[in-house]
Amino acid sequence: MKKISIGEKFGLFHEEWTPKIIAETNGQLVKLAKGSGELVWHKHENEDELFIVFKGQLTIQMHEGDVTLGPNEMFVVPKGVEHCPLAEPGTHFMMIEPGSTAHTGDLKTDVTVSAEDQEWI
Amino acid sequence: MKKISIGEKFGLFHEEWTPKIIAETNGQLVKLAKGSGELVWHKHENEDELFIVFKGQLTIQMHEGDVTLGPNEMFVVPKGVEHCPLAEPGTHFMMIEPGSTAHTGDLKTDVTVSAEDQEWI
Repeated sequence: MKKISIGEKFGLFHEEWTPKIIAETNGQLVKLAKGSGELVWHKHENEDELFIVFKGQLTIQMHEGDVTLGPNEMFVVPKGVEHCPLAEPGTHFMMIEPGSTAHTGDLKTDVTVSAEDQEWI
Repeated sequence: MKKISIGEKFGLFHEEWTPKIIAETNGQLVKLAKGSGELVWHKHENEDELFIVFKGQLTIQMHEGDVTLGPNEMFVVPKGVEHCPLAEPGTHFMMIEPGSTAHTGDLKTDVTVSAEDQEWI
């Protein structure tokens, strides 16, 4: 029964595109991530993916058009929609998605951290 | 496919303890609320409830001990845990919970807005 300081949690890691789990609610995991540059194009067949930006700027590139988020802005990538995150250096963001979601979706790449290997902080 | 500005959404309403829905993701609703003073003691038998504070101070009173949240702090009230939110004047916060969740849980009071009547903004 402890509160979670989002700023403090962001201070606990430096890796980019490596989501860290900070909470679980109703089967959804709340994750924090840092990023700069592009991740990879991917989709999540059965899961929506919520992004909230805390610092910097995150562009969710999609074939339907890009969405660019600054601090305190959010977006839900609907299930099945192919997307590729693109972040300014030093971007901090939160993701909320089911426990089963791998961050590169149906694509396995060098940067992929499998859902089972995602770390709690 | 539009981004959501959390600050802009908070500017769209003034009512207290009247959650407004701003997004849906995997069957969970993302809601914004303002509050001051106490709501009521209640619990959600089957649903966890995530709180993130954006402005002010929100105390989640629980029989197990209170948790006080400032900006950028969050807490998940586990299902079945009786709680009573207590907010400083001008507190703004986000809640994430299943679509079926009424904000006063199993208790119906004068301030209760039923899940079906909660408004999208």
